[in-house]
Amino acid sequence: MKIIGSFVSPYVRKVLACLHLKGLAYEIDPITPFFGNDEFRRLSPLSRIPVLIDGDFTAGDSSVICAYIDEAYPGPPLLPSDPKDRARARWFEEYADTRLGDVFIWNLFYQKLVHPMVWGEPGDQQRIDKALAEDIPEVMDYLEGQLPESGWLFGEFGLADIAIATFFRNAAYVDYHPDPARWPKVASFVDRALAHDAFAATKPFEDIQRGVDIKGRRQALLDAGHRSPVKRSGLRRLARER
Amino acid sequence: MKIIGSFVSPYVRKVLACLHLKGLAYEIDPITPFFGNDEFRRLSPLSRIPVLIDGDFTAGDSSVICAYIDEAYPGPPLLPSDPKDRARARWFEEYADTRLGDVFIWNLFYQKLVHPMVWGEPGDQQRIDKALAEDIPEVMDYLEGQLPESGWLFGEFGLADIAIATFFRNAAYVDYHPDPARWPKVASFVDRALAHDAFAATKPFEDIQRGVDIKGRRQALLDAGHRSPVKRSGLRRLARER
Repeated sequence: MKIIGSFVSPYVRKVLACLHLKGLAYEIDPITPFFGNDEFRRLSPLSRIPVLIDGDFTAGDSSVICAYIDEAYPGPPLLPSDPKDRARARWFEEYADTRLGDVFIWNLFYQKLVHPMVWGEPGDQQRIDKALAEDIPEVMDYLEGQLPESGWLFGEFGLADIAIATFFRNAAYVDYHPDPARWPKVASFVDRALAHDAFAATKPFEDIQRGVDIKGRRQALLDAGHRSPVKRSGLRRLARER
Repeated sequence: MKIIGSFVSPYVRKVLACLHLKGLAYEIDPITPFFGNDEFRRLSPLSRIPVLIDGDFTAGDSSVICAYIDEAYPGPPLLPSDPKDRARARWFEEYADTRLGDVFIWNLFYQKLVHPMVWGEPGDQQRIDKALAEDIPEVMDYLEGQLPESGWLFGEFGLADIAIATFFRNAAYVDYHPDPARWPKVASFVDRALAHDAFAATKPFEDIQRGVDIKGRRQALLDAGHRSPVKRSGLRRLARER
């Protein structure tokens, strides 16, 4: 099984954690999504990473991939068994993919880290300030009301826990850590989840990848004669994770 | 079972078609999503319609609701049985919810119909032109390569067929009809699907609801002392269908 995508993407990390939990081996192809070409577009019509390639089968959306892994392979289930619990677990995944994505990735991680690294100029400080003052407290209040004091959302560690926790690793990369005094359940849940083997296993590779200068990588690819020059609009392309 | 949402929403229509296919009775509460209040926010933390209320259980995302209906109730399955087919069906749902939503709802239906009706001024003509010249042909080309010449995507009529077809009813409301000369498979698929009982059943109610002037309804609610005055930013709130 092959995964196309970067270790640093929260959506790729979600899929890798699910593969780890199911005990499935995989290779990763850390394509820079900037360089989407026709073949990539064929594999992933919405130009999203991650993409799963499993023999002659491909899937191009992290939620679709996780559901596929769970149904096509044995190993510990990623979803609970009761239909209402399953619906709640899928809801948490949707909430995380959408809302935590907007707040932690778009308004914080990209502005504070990706934008300056790629374009050599600061991100949108107003957006960062609003995220910290308004959006993040709102989602933290919501999560504080939902997450368990100990253990996991549905008994065993699974997709819902993974889908939420993955965003907090990107948040940590830009120095956001849940305040344990204000949101004790979230803070301890995030610590527990990110310490789980499913997340710990990919951390060393994330650290290597984070060590590579994106600007340098980009220049290196251009030097190597890559046919798609990176335009400013490329940043939007990087957006297409899910 | 109760569904909160408007008959005219493609995401609500998707859920109602699934309920019809499963043979499940429901009531609908056509709340105008403009008027989201704290209770609505509790039911639907992303302020999305539709919301399903099934006894003491609620769910607030159309994909989560359809998966729940399929797993919690007997009747014809909404998804095929093979794991790869299930993944492809979920992919079509995701593609439709995201891309057909952007193209047909945001760039066409809202600009051509909702915006003028609510604000009494024309929508963004540039956006409409771009949708017709670029975005719609692109998605139509993709669908033409995916949809079957006859019958349905996975043998029996199901969620994937419903998720795609629902957007074409809104497109038709603003006079967009697939060109059968250019996209013959899409054109015949859409005709077949929208003629299916699952879609035909709600058409009369859609027509009634479309007959009500949104501006009038809004004023009527304000006259009745509804506590949330409708601000310009309300249009963004209407966005939150999924």
